[in-house]
Amino acid sequence: MNQPRSTRAPLMDFDLARERLLSFARVIAQAEEVSLLQANGRVLAQAVPSPMDVPGFANSAMDGYAICPASPTTVPMKLQVTQRIAAGSQGTALQPGQAARIFTGAPVPENTYAVIAQENVQLLEDGSVQIDKAVPEGEFVRAQGEDIAIGSDILTAGSVLKPAHLALAASVGITTLTVRRRLKVALLLTGDELIEPGQPLGPGQIYNSNRYWLQALLTQLGCDVMDPGIVPDTPHDTKVALHTASEQADLIITCGGVSVGEEDHVRAAVESMGHIDLWQIAMKPGKPLAYGKVHETDFLGLPGNPVSAYVTFVLMALPFLRAKLGMAAPVLAPQPMIAGFDWPKPDRRREFIRVRRRRVSQGAVVLEHWPNQGSGVMSSVAWADGLVDIPAGSTIRAGDTVSYLPLSDLIEG
Amino acid sequence: MNQPRSTRAPLMDFDLARERLLSFARVIAQAEEVSLLQANGRVLAQAVPSPMDVPGFANSAMDGYAICPASPTTVPMKLQVTQRIAAGSQGTALQPGQAARIFTGAPVPENTYAVIAQENVQLLEDGSVQIDKAVPEGEFVRAQGEDIAIGSDILTAGSVLKPAHLALAASVGITTLTVRRRLKVALLLTGDELIEPGQPLGPGQIYNSNRYWLQALLTQLGCDVMDPGIVPDTPHDTKVALHTASEQADLIITCGGVSVGEEDHVRAAVESMGHIDLWQIAMKPGKPLAYGKVHETDFLGLPGNPVSAYVTFVLMALPFLRAKLGMAAPVLAPQPMIAGFDWPKPDRRREFIRVRRRRVSQGAVVLEHWPNQGSGVMSSVAWADGLVDIPAGSTIRAGDTVSYLPLSDLIEG
Repeated sequence: MNQPRSTRAPLMDFDLARERLLSFARVIAQAEEVSLLQANGRVLAQAVPSPMDVPGFANSAMDGYAICPASPTTVPMKLQVTQRIAAGSQGTALQPGQAARIFTGAPVPENTYAVIAQENVQLLEDGSVQIDKAVPEGEFVRAQGEDIAIGSDILTAGSVLKPAHLALAASVGITTLTVRRRLKVALLLTGDELIEPGQPLGPGQIYNSNRYWLQALLTQLGCDVMDPGIVPDTPHDTKVALHTASEQADLIITCGGVSVGEEDHVRAAVESMGHIDLWQIAMKPGKPLAYGKVHETDFLGLPGNPVSAYVTFVLMALPFLRAKLGMAAPVLAPQPMIAGFDWPKPDRRREFIRVRRRRVSQGAVVLEHWPNQGSGVMSSVAWADGLVDIPAGSTIRAGDTVSYLPLSDLIEG
Repeated sequence: MNQPRSTRAPLMDFDLARERLLSFARVIAQAEEVSLLQANGRVLAQAVPSPMDVPGFANSAMDGYAICPASPTTVPMKLQVTQRIAAGSQGTALQPGQAARIFTGAPVPENTYAVIAQENVQLLEDGSVQIDKAVPEGEFVRAQGEDIAIGSDILTAGSVLKPAHLALAASVGITTLTVRRRLKVALLLTGDELIEPGQPLGPGQIYNSNRYWLQALLTQLGCDVMDPGIVPDTPHDTKVALHTASEQADLIITCGGVSVGEEDHVRAAVESMGHIDLWQIAMKPGKPLAYGKVHETDFLGLPGNPVSAYVTFVLMALPFLRAKLGMAAPVLAPQPMIAGFDWPKPDRRREFIRVRRRRVSQGAVVLEHWPNQGSGVMSSVAWADGLVDIPAGSTIRAGDTVSYLPLSDLIEG
């Protein structure tokens, strides 16, 4: 037996490791045109200029009256109602002293000075309207191009498209968007101790859980997931699985198998078809992370422990995926929040502990933490809505401001 | 012309309106069993107890040595390495003075006192190991049932299932989950001024944009969306469309057509087959909201303006949908954040302005706001990551703590 490797290698700084990993991410070149309703969650490949002014015509912001006063500042004023303009119809030019009954969104007629909300108008017996208070010119009139000028970018390259983005594109008449093609990610789950749920557990065996969050999360992120099943822990099977995956996928993700442990066929298999770097990162949970290439395909080896794998995925693999999709800010920013717990024991590794927001009184929100942060099961992650980033060697007292990373942000972008 | 109704009716309080709306939400009774990989994003219909202890067996938290010292506190101690236990295999009982080489996750052998990390062990020439520092009993041993005790609930009814929930269920051998069936939502978009993107705009016409965010958002929320296309603005077409939708859907959503405006066939059509309440809510954007029934099907009438419709949807319709799915907390809690902007002009309505988080220096984050909050287009919503809830009659100065509603939370739950 040799002295295990981990006692010799110094730990790699977390930020440095992530920067290095991101430096290896090549943006996928291919894009495709998809219809608006298929574009939700996809990454925009190029900026989208507006083909038109919005509003395309000056229109009313209220249900009320478009007015053309002879003298705008003389009140009370009486105006003759000469027309009625519903949304979708078009009026004729107003003459001084005239008004048009108008509805929200309807084009204001030529010579409109302002629109008066119907609440501020008195209807007179003869069908005319009286206005008692002068209003500024242009009030409640939306000018042509006021919201969006023709040619200006309404969406920027690298955005993750959300429902409101699709609506914005629709509002200027756009029907399709050019998005990066989906990333193809192959999962390689190794380990003879892993059994699929539904099968009886033999001695020393545990259920495969990494498959489930990985598949769901990658699918939610818009990836095409390939999952050929658990790879038997032999050099041959591992090599065949990696080779097959490299022919189809942009990225191969493994869980477990790559560590300082001795039961490691993945490493040798990757090295036989490419290269692999094994990093020991000063992070907790986490620590081991492998980056390499199998032929031309990126390879990421996550830890086998589900909590370590999940945290390493959201902090390392997710930014890597975002960078491959050409997103402008692959690493998401934390936000300051108040800790509602003590964290008295410093660690030499930077820690990412599982926390949840809790409303303590009206307006005030603190973070509470999952008590057993060392847990090997997913309870803490299932319970959490975010991570708190604790610098190496630091402690926390309740009331301190801490760096909170909302999981919804990390995943939604 | 009659005096329009809105000048007479007092505005309804926002919270009161939402409470009233939620009081009408009946939880859908039907549930269905789906496999784990289909369960992401669905709402759990019943609590899930664990069918097993986790860990199912006491196991090692480290790569190292399981030890059985003759005298645990006498150091240095020398132990004979008698076996090697990899994950997935099983050892035999240790005798005093013995140790087992062991790997993370592997079952500790009988009589294990503690596990020592390999970094803290000296390998001797004769193959035995020396330990220089005493360790507490049970160190780096994960006890059976330590994380999850058999019979305890691992997931609670009404949760929106996330990837980590699926992994947690998998880790205790569960293969399927019982979730509420999907809500069926019919969209009825009315208005002769609405044109589908891709068609040329006639005078006074605008592109339909509500369809796009509504379809994408409802789909993202796990609803089955029915969308028969834009309904022509006639009493007959409106009635037929509503009747057809009521036969298939749990909820009918319309945009526009229900307001104080006079061009309103939806209201009469709903009343002919059920009932409708038209509320004027003291909120901005928003204000008009209709709730009713078409036969037995819920009916929600959103404003026609896309920004008003979107904000009303996330603040009113979304909690209603969540309540129908049996979620414990249909209304999501705001969080305090620092405003990075002034809001000098109070409004008599409670305002929900579109904001975005901005990192101003290390650790500090403020909210910036979209300058044109009155905009009729979706630019502000597409840009925003949340809403700030401004009480009626209030102003804000940069540096104030405000109530921030993250859109990712509202949507993700």
